[in-house]
Amino acid sequence: MKVAGTHYRTIWVNEDGWSVDLIDQRWLPHELRVENVTSVEGIAAAIRDMWVRGAPLIGVTAAYGVALRMREDPSDAALDAVWEELHETRPTAINLRWALNEMRGLLRGLPENARASAAYKRAAEIADEDVELNRGIGRHGLAIIREIARTKKAGEPVNILTHCNAGWLATVDYGTATSPIYLASEEGVPVHVYVDETRPRNQGAHLTAWEMAGHGVPHTLIVDNAGGHLMQHGMVDMVIVGTDRTTSIGDVCNKIGTYLKALAAKDNGVPFYVALPSPTIDWTVRDGVKEIPIEERSGDEVSLVWGRDEDGRTRQVRISPEATPAGNPAFDVTPARLITGLITERGVAEASEKGLAKLFPEHAKSAA
Amino acid sequence: MKVAGTHYRTIWVNEDGWSVDLIDQRWLPHELRVENVTSVEGIAAAIRDMWVRGAPLIGVTAAYGVALRMREDPSDAALDAVWEELHETRPTAINLRWALNEMRGLLRGLPENARASAAYKRAAEIADEDVELNRGIGRHGLAIIREIARTKKAGEPVNILTHCNAGWLATVDYGTATSPIYLASEEGVPVHVYVDETRPRNQGAHLTAWEMAGHGVPHTLIVDNAGGHLMQHGMVDMVIVGTDRTTSIGDVCNKIGTYLKALAAKDNGVPFYVALPSPTIDWTVRDGVKEIPIEERSGDEVSLVWGRDEDGRTRQVRISPEATPAGNPAFDVTPARLITGLITERGVAEASEKGLAKLFPEHAKSAA
Repeated sequence: MKVAGTHYRTIWVNEDGWSVDLIDQRWLPHELRVENVTSVEGIAAAIRDMWVRGAPLIGVTAAYGVALRMREDPSDAALDAVWEELHETRPTAINLRWALNEMRGLLRGLPENARASAAYKRAAEIADEDVELNRGIGRHGLAIIREIARTKKAGEPVNILTHCNAGWLATVDYGTATSPIYLASEEGVPVHVYVDETRPRNQGAHLTAWEMAGHGVPHTLIVDNAGGHLMQHGMVDMVIVGTDRTTSIGDVCNKIGTYLKALAAKDNGVPFYVALPSPTIDWTVRDGVKEIPIEERSGDEVSLVWGRDEDGRTRQVRISPEATPAGNPAFDVTPARLITGLITERGVAEASEKGLAKLFPEHAKSAA
Repeated sequence: MKVAGTHYRTIWVNEDGWSVDLIDQRWLPHELRVENVTSVEGIAAAIRDMWVRGAPLIGVTAAYGVALRMREDPSDAALDAVWEELHETRPTAINLRWALNEMRGLLRGLPENARASAAYKRAAEIADEDVELNRGIGRHGLAIIREIARTKKAGEPVNILTHCNAGWLATVDYGTATSPIYLASEEGVPVHVYVDETRPRNQGAHLTAWEMAGHGVPHTLIVDNAGGHLMQHGMVDMVIVGTDRTTSIGDVCNKIGTYLKALAAKDNGVPFYVALPSPTIDWTVRDGVKEIPIEERSGDEVSLVWGRDEDGRTRQVRISPEATPAGNPAFDVTPARLITGLITERGVAEASEKGLAKLFPEHAKSAA
């Protein structure tokens, strides 16, 4: 999407035709740094050290890593080695594994001299497929926003609350939860976004707010505590969030705090939507609260807050006593009963086994 | 309560017998600064610049301000002047006004030469009355904790979640929401406290965590987003919070985010208690969501986070883009239907008109 008038994706092939440019997101929102990556080592660092994050973007970045290696050495040994090297950067990232398998499967069947160009081509396709998936989500979400806009007075924006960053920075472009917002904004449907800061890592304050500011979408940053109050007072028309994992019955595992917003939405009759590309549905899991293990991350993410000081230097400050331990569950599960709809690239599904089966009959059959 | 083995109150008369010592809370949790205040100007600064905060403590501090002035000049003119001077430091603080009226009403009826000593005596009484009120709340809350402790396996603590700081630092001693916790801890009932950091001002991370660490109460700091997940997984046995204002039907206005925790408690069958000294009940208000105006504070409290850097210097860092505006509603209202009980100095009331009327018949009558 746009940053101060210029259109960006999160990753692209450099003008030289082979090296890879990507946004090093660690410096956002204070600095837009584009890094030129020329080696698999650079790609591995970008994934491991979280210059890039978000499942779809990690997959695409890895695909370009394979392309870079094929250009140097298109042998089977090199192909296996780059699979291993990139896979271990974030071994639990499902999209990373998927993209690496996809590339290796394709390239193995080709003669060595055809592998480099095929790898670049397939990496670009994976990137474009991500954009198309997100635009699909966007179109279905846009229909919902339009519907709400019809109920508002002329000029009054549709107020949308979002949590964490399921934005274009987590994908190649458009994002998932933000895609309907960008399409609405492009179509001239007035929207205003309440951005949860999303403690502890503040992806809302760092990334989503920066996206909105860059693309010119009216928005307001709020603390994670504020959404319930805003909903009580009719200041939120809908909630859209992303998801890391959706179960076969429509439970949604997303950034910690999502569940609290869903409860507030339910209590105040505010529609609560989850935007998701269908590959994030885990058809093997049913009850999300019972079955999904929640990652416990370092307490330092809670105790130390990262930002820019008055001298323009980015640094961390400690907000709590040294003697105080911190707990840091990274995700929570929002039960399907609190969710108005799941916005997928195929349409909006009811958050239930039946609703998902209707849109994805091929999976429903295989699970039964 | 204790700080590293030494018992403190938040305010006391210095050994010299006339000047006032108080904890300058702006430096917590990183530094315990006790200031010796020798003038009404100093008292005014302590209230205005929030060296002290919390309704009860502000009232006591103002009472000592009156005493300091009476020692210099016990005239009626000085009494009226100090009332004005201190009242304007935080004109909306109800306890401040109450304490000033109380002092002026008493002192006016006395000869000038008796005023200074009477002022010190009454200020000390107001401080002791606050402690007694809180200990009363503590005893009734302790009974609830004991009851839960009986259902736990031997040695397993009662897990209590609290939001913001309704601790001894907001009062003269014991606090309101923390009083049952301190009494449990003194009695050897094992407790463990989940401390919400309480964005945007982080009173949980700064003050409640420091209190718990200082007094030796086992505790874990969490982000405000985490409570729902913990309750889903049976990790919270009860919630106790304070309140700024309670309505005649039991709605509770407290720090922003309290409502979200109450929703999660309800959804998971976790008892949700509010601790309150009865003077914070506003018998003139019924529907809190509709009738209580919520203060909107500076967006800088959201965008800038205060803490200690790696060089030991306290400073603010910006977490969001300069172009991003922030919204900052300071309180929200938790409807009575979500509250298990109101812990007052007279006992635990059902959060309803009937429940409050039963414990406070004298007010119920006057409101009818």
